[in-house]
Amino acid sequence: MNPTVNFTPGPSQLYFTVEDHVRTAFREGVPSLSHRTKKFESYYQSTVEGLRALLNIPAGYHLYFTGSATEIWERVVENLVEEKSFHLVNGSFSKRFFEVSQQLQRKADKLEVANGQGFDASFRATEGTELIALTHNETSTGVMLPLEFFKTVRANHPDALLAVDAVSSLPFPDFDFNLLDSVFFSVQKGFGLPAGLGVWLVNDKCVAKAEQLLAKGKSIGSYHTIPSLHTHALKNQTPETPNVLAIYLLSKVVEDMNRKGIQAIRKETEYKAALLYNTLNQHSVLNPFVKDKAFQSKTVVVADTGEHTERITKLLLEKGMQPGDGYGPSKKTQLRFANFPTHAKEHFEALVDTLEAYKP
Amino acid sequence: MNPTVNFTPGPSQLYFTVEDHVRTAFREGVPSLSHRTKKFESYYQSTVEGLRALLNIPAGYHLYFTGSATEIWERVVENLVEEKSFHLVNGSFSKRFFEVSQQLQRKADKLEVANGQGFDASFRATEGTELIALTHNETSTGVMLPLEFFKTVRANHPDALLAVDAVSSLPFPDFDFNLLDSVFFSVQKGFGLPAGLGVWLVNDKCVAKAEQLLAKGKSIGSYHTIPSLHTHALKNQTPETPNVLAIYLLSKVVEDMNRKGIQAIRKETEYKAALLYNTLNQHSVLNPFVKDKAFQSKTVVVADTGEHTERITKLLLEKGMQPGDGYGPSKKTQLRFANFPTHAKEHFEALVDTLEAYKP
Repeated sequence: MNPTVNFTPGPSQLYFTVEDHVRTAFREGVPSLSHRTKKFESYYQSTVEGLRALLNIPAGYHLYFTGSATEIWERVVENLVEEKSFHLVNGSFSKRFFEVSQQLQRKADKLEVANGQGFDASFRATEGTELIALTHNETSTGVMLPLEFFKTVRANHPDALLAVDAVSSLPFPDFDFNLLDSVFFSVQKGFGLPAGLGVWLVNDKCVAKAEQLLAKGKSIGSYHTIPSLHTHALKNQTPETPNVLAIYLLSKVVEDMNRKGIQAIRKETEYKAALLYNTLNQHSVLNPFVKDKAFQSKTVVVADTGEHTERITKLLLEKGMQPGDGYGPSKKTQLRFANFPTHAKEHFEALVDTLEAYKP
Repeated sequence: MNPTVNFTPGPSQLYFTVEDHVRTAFREGVPSLSHRTKKFESYYQSTVEGLRALLNIPAGYHLYFTGSATEIWERVVENLVEEKSFHLVNGSFSKRFFEVSQQLQRKADKLEVANGQGFDASFRATEGTELIALTHNETSTGVMLPLEFFKTVRANHPDALLAVDAVSSLPFPDFDFNLLDSVFFSVQKGFGLPAGLGVWLVNDKCVAKAEQLLAKGKSIGSYHTIPSLHTHALKNQTPETPNVLAIYLLSKVVEDMNRKGIQAIRKETEYKAALLYNTLNQHSVLNPFVKDKAFQSKTVVVADTGEHTERITKLLLEKGMQPGDGYGPSKKTQLRFANFPTHAKEHFEALVDTLEAYKP
C-alpha cells in the first residue's frame, strides 16, 4: 500500500477494507467467476439489497450496472429523452452531460452559471422538457445542490424526469428518492473502489419511458437499454459479461458501510467538512472557492490557494498527504480535497493542522 | 486460489501470473491511480506496445479500451455503418452482433448456417455492404474461421470494412492485419484476466469512416466514438475514467506472454487442441461437435457428450477439472473446453486421460 493519504476526488483513496476483500475474492475464485452462475447472482443481489438499505431506496427503483458513470450520461439520454433535455451547468462535468445530449442529437437546453455558483431553485425548464439533468455535486468546482433544491425542481416540473448525477456525493446525501427518477454514480469516488463500474438507479417511470420510445420505433441502443438491463436485473443478471470483481467488491464495501451505519458516515462527513471549511474561512491566505454556504460541497471541498498552490502541495506531500489539483484552468490556483467515507477524522485533523501551520 | 482447473470458455481461468500482478498493483497504488497521470499513460502505452509486439500489429492500427466486447459490437455499428452491415452467423454470439446492428436500425443482412458449421469463403455480401461482421471463433459452438478465409473475403469485398470479433481466440491467431480493418476482444478469455475490459483495434480506414459519418451530421455516439477514443489514444488517454487496474494487469500479462513468446504459445495451443480432438475422435461415446476439421476451433473445443454429459462432468470435477457447459440449448448434451494460454499441457494431458478412462 502507498502510505500517502490521497485527497484527490477521484479515483479516490481506496476504502480501507478493499485490499482484504480482493484477497478474499481471489481465494474464492471471484475474478474468474462466470456471470451466468448462482454465485454471481447472489453477489448482484447482495449489492442491490445492501445499497437499498444503505441509501434507503424505495420499492419501484431498479439498479443496473454499466462500465462507468460517463456511460450512464449516454444511456440516460438514449433511453429517456426523445427530443428535449434541460441541463443545469456550473462546471466541467455538468457541461459534459449537456454535450452528450447534443452529440446524441437531442435538443439540449441549459441554465448555465459561473463555476463555483449554485442555481436559483425556482428556475423553469424549457417548455416540453422531458428530462432535467442535475449534477448533485460538481466535482470540478465543489458545488453541491442542497437537498431542498430537488423539492422545488420537482414541484415546478411535475411531468419531467429528474436525473441526478451523484458521482462524487454518494453515499453521503440522504436523497428523498421519491422526488427523483434516476440517480447514478461510479464506484471510484465515495465508495472507494477501483474504477471500472457505474451504478444506475431508475424508477418505474424511466422503465416505462424507455419502453414507450422503443414502441414508437426509436432506437434506444442495444445491450444497455433500460428494457435489456431491466429484464436481466430481475434475474440478478447483466446483459454482457460485467466487471464481476467490482460488483463483488461493491457488495462487500456496502456491507462494511451498513455495519458502520449511514448515520455515522454522514455525521463524520459533516464533521470533516466543517473542520476544513472552518480552517479555510479563518486562514490568512486561503479561502473556500464556493462562497455561498448553501452550495458548499460536503464531499469535495475546493480551496482557492492562488500563488500558494505549489508550496502548499509540497508541504502536504511532505506530510504524506496528496491533495487533488484544481480542475482544468484552475490547476495552478486551487486545490481540491475529497471528503469520502474512507477519509478518517484523523486524516482531516492532520490536513487542517498542516494548512493552519502554513506560513506564506 | 481455487484448486480446480477451469476449462469454461469465459470468464476463463486466470492467467497464472495475475494474482501476483494484483498484489504488485496494490503495492504501487494502481487501484486508486488517477487516469490523468503520466503513470497511467505509461501503463496505457506499455499495453499498446506489448500487444503490437505480441500480435504483430502494423502501423496505422489504433488501440482503444471499452467496458466489454459487447460494447464494441455497438460501437462498431455506430461508428462504421451508415446503412448496411453484413453478418456471418453460425451461433449465439455472431447472431447477437447481427441483432445489435438491427437494434441500431441499420439494414443488417446475414448469411446464416447451422450451429457447428463453417461458411463457404466465396460468399458475396449484399450490394452496398459497408461492413462485414465476422466472428473468428464462435464461442457457443467451437467453430473457428481458418486464416485463409479472410484472404478470400477481402479479395471479394475490396470496398467493405472487415470487422472481426476475436473474443475467444486471441492471442492465438496469427492474423494478417492488413486484410482486416477492425479486430476486438475482451480480456477474460485468452488473456486470462478478470472481466471488465474490451480492447478495440481499428485502422485508419475506420477512423476516416467515423469522421465521415460525423461530418455528414450523423450521430455516432458520445464519449466512445472513434474520433473521441482516437484523440485520447494519441495521448495514451481514455475519454472516461477507465478500468485502470485491468489496463495495468493486461500490460503485465502481455509482458509475460511476450517473454514466453507468441510462437511457443501458438505451438502449445495447437498441441493441446490436437490432444483433445484426437481423444474425441477415437472415443467410443464422445465426438467433436464440429465435424469439418478446417473449422474446428483450436481455442474452444466443443464435445458432443449426449447422455454422458452429467456423468463426465461429475468425473472431471472429482479430478479437479471444471468443464464448460454446452451453450444454451446444448447445455445437457455438450461440453466446452477452453484451450487458452493459461491452460498448461499437463492440464490437457490430465483432461484427456480422464476422458479416455471414462467407461459408460
